[in-house]
Amino acid sequence: MSRALAVGIDIGGTKVAGGLVDADGQVLARARRDTPHRSTSPAVVEDTIVEVVAELLSGTVDEVAAVGIGAAGFVAADRATVAFAPHLSWRDEPLEHNLQRRVPVPISVDNDANAAAWAEWRFGAAQGQSHVVMVNLGTGIGGALVLDGQIMRGRFGIAGEFGHMQVVPGGQRCECGNKGCWEQYASGNALVREARSLMTANSPMATDLLARVDGDPLALTGPMITDAARDGDTTAIELFTEIGHWLGVGIANLAAAFDPGLFVIGGGVSAAGDLLLEPARITFRRQLTGRGYRPEAAIVGAALGNEAGLIGAADLARRDVVERAPAETP
Amino acid sequence: MSRALAVGIDIGGTKVAGGLVDADGQVLARARRDTPHRSTSPAVVEDTIVEVVAELLSGTVDEVAAVGIGAAGFVAADRATVAFAPHLSWRDEPLEHNLQRRVPVPISVDNDANAAAWAEWRFGAAQGQSHVVMVNLGTGIGGALVLDGQIMRGRFGIAGEFGHMQVVPGGQRCECGNKGCWEQYASGNALVREARSLMTANSPMATDLLARVDGDPLALTGPMITDAARDGDTTAIELFTEIGHWLGVGIANLAAAFDPGLFVIGGGVSAAGDLLLEPARITFRRQLTGRGYRPEAAIVGAALGNEAGLIGAADLARRDVVERAPAETP
Repeated sequence: MSRALAVGIDIGGTKVAGGLVDADGQVLARARRDTPHRSTSPAVVEDTIVEVVAELLSGTVDEVAAVGIGAAGFVAADRATVAFAPHLSWRDEPLEHNLQRRVPVPISVDNDANAAAWAEWRFGAAQGQSHVVMVNLGTGIGGALVLDGQIMRGRFGIAGEFGHMQVVPGGQRCECGNKGCWEQYASGNALVREARSLMTANSPMATDLLARVDGDPLALTGPMITDAARDGDTTAIELFTEIGHWLGVGIANLAAAFDPGLFVIGGGVSAAGDLLLEPARITFRRQLTGRGYRPEAAIVGAALGNEAGLIGAADLARRDVVERAPAETP
Repeated sequence: MSRALAVGIDIGGTKVAGGLVDADGQVLARARRDTPHRSTSPAVVEDTIVEVVAELLSGTVDEVAAVGIGAAGFVAADRATVAFAPHLSWRDEPLEHNLQRRVPVPISVDNDANAAAWAEWRFGAAQGQSHVVMVNLGTGIGGALVLDGQIMRGRFGIAGEFGHMQVVPGGQRCECGNKGCWEQYASGNALVREARSLMTANSPMATDLLARVDGDPLALTGPMITDAARDGDTTAIELFTEIGHWLGVGIANLAAAFDPGLFVIGGGVSAAGDLLLEPARITFRRQLTGRGYRPEAAIVGAALGNEAGLIGAADLARRDVVERAPAETP
């Protein structure tokens, strides 16, 4: 039986999502679990990953070439170790080694945003583009660069951590230990934090949002704010305008540095579509250095939604296996 | 006679510097003029360039393979047009075309920081490095990326404009039209501006600096502040500490995004050496996201000093001619 399939696993701050993915990037089956809280041991996260993989390999193991893991953390240049994961409990975690002992097909590890960017370049919004910057707005901000069809991983494997570029000196404290990181202003966490601060201040602006959670600010989630904005709640719309503005600020900075042709905005927050992207485009156009005297990058939403990470992880893993295999004689 | 030499021209905000450069990056002859003020027409800048080239080609024209221009501006992807130059008078200037009519050997145009980075990678501080970020502190901040021995130019040719990444929202106005650009906090202009503001405020801190310019703040230059700092003037040292701090902030941001193995700091301000670099390293180590859980890039001064730009421009131009030439049969 040919091994045309791959399993992709996307490990974020809140969920472990897996999929069985074919060579065209189609997801044939899905499995998911909540991410264990970062106060638990790394082994618990591993157990969760192994469970999701086992579920997807059940009955298909002979057709699966590889398992790809996209992890929300600093994946070292060896593509085996997670050096640091601000939203998980990993520190120098030998993830590939630990998982490979428990999974019967070859494992590849990559950063989750690298995986998502790869998927968008192969199958999604960035096909055919030579210089792509991916910005994933989830719990934090993940990022990646695809240059001429290659992920730019950096000298130590940790490129694309755009979320930890400082945009406000002395600003909001970040889980990475710094202050004023971009992801404190343009991410799902930032969106929820700002909404909750209105709610706990008993602002009349928050009446609609409070009603959606029966008065409990801690019950509020990002998708609830997206729903409220879509329903026309002006406070929710304003919150997206604010997040979108900061998204535009950071994108203008990245355009100054990398000069890509395309920015692809993915992650859970991007489900809000133009509620997020239009304010980002407005700020970007106002803030881009040399505007009016240069071509400008386009800013588009991701095409593969929340599944980009697992699709890309699967495709990268399959590619690794193909590249490792001895070349056939023609 | 073999054409083993090339002419390199570095056009900055204050000077047009030229050199006759051999294949090992040695500068055999030099010529320079002041850059005409940006209020003059583009043609005047062209005249100045042509004069410098003519001086260097005089008696050597048969040995020169190419003339390379490194310009402080946004050089478009065609490597012929300067789209925008905040410190010069060019807007969509067809520089290669205009100069080629007046110069008898092939002309290549590139961004000045790309040229300097190329020189450091070929002959200087970045030899053998796979992921290099160059930061040039002159009038403003120029920047470039060298990845696996290739300059990363971006989709439209304008990558590396690090100086126009915003580091302070609503901060100092920049000549590019924005506010809070990095080069307003870590460049020669910033250094001189801060020193002058102390002088015009009649701060007792500025006594030593004022004495160096006979009481005329407008006569103060960056190199004078460097001299004062070297002589132990505490105010000048503090100014370099401040500029160095902001240099470190921006470098930590670039490390988050690109994850290079090496930062090379060049340009006129870098002549201050550790007076500038040590504060930068201290802030970088304090500000780098994931510090302690990741390898850290080194920060070193440029090896080729102010001549990196012209050496790199010459070498890139020679390379262009070689690559354009029909391949010899072995």
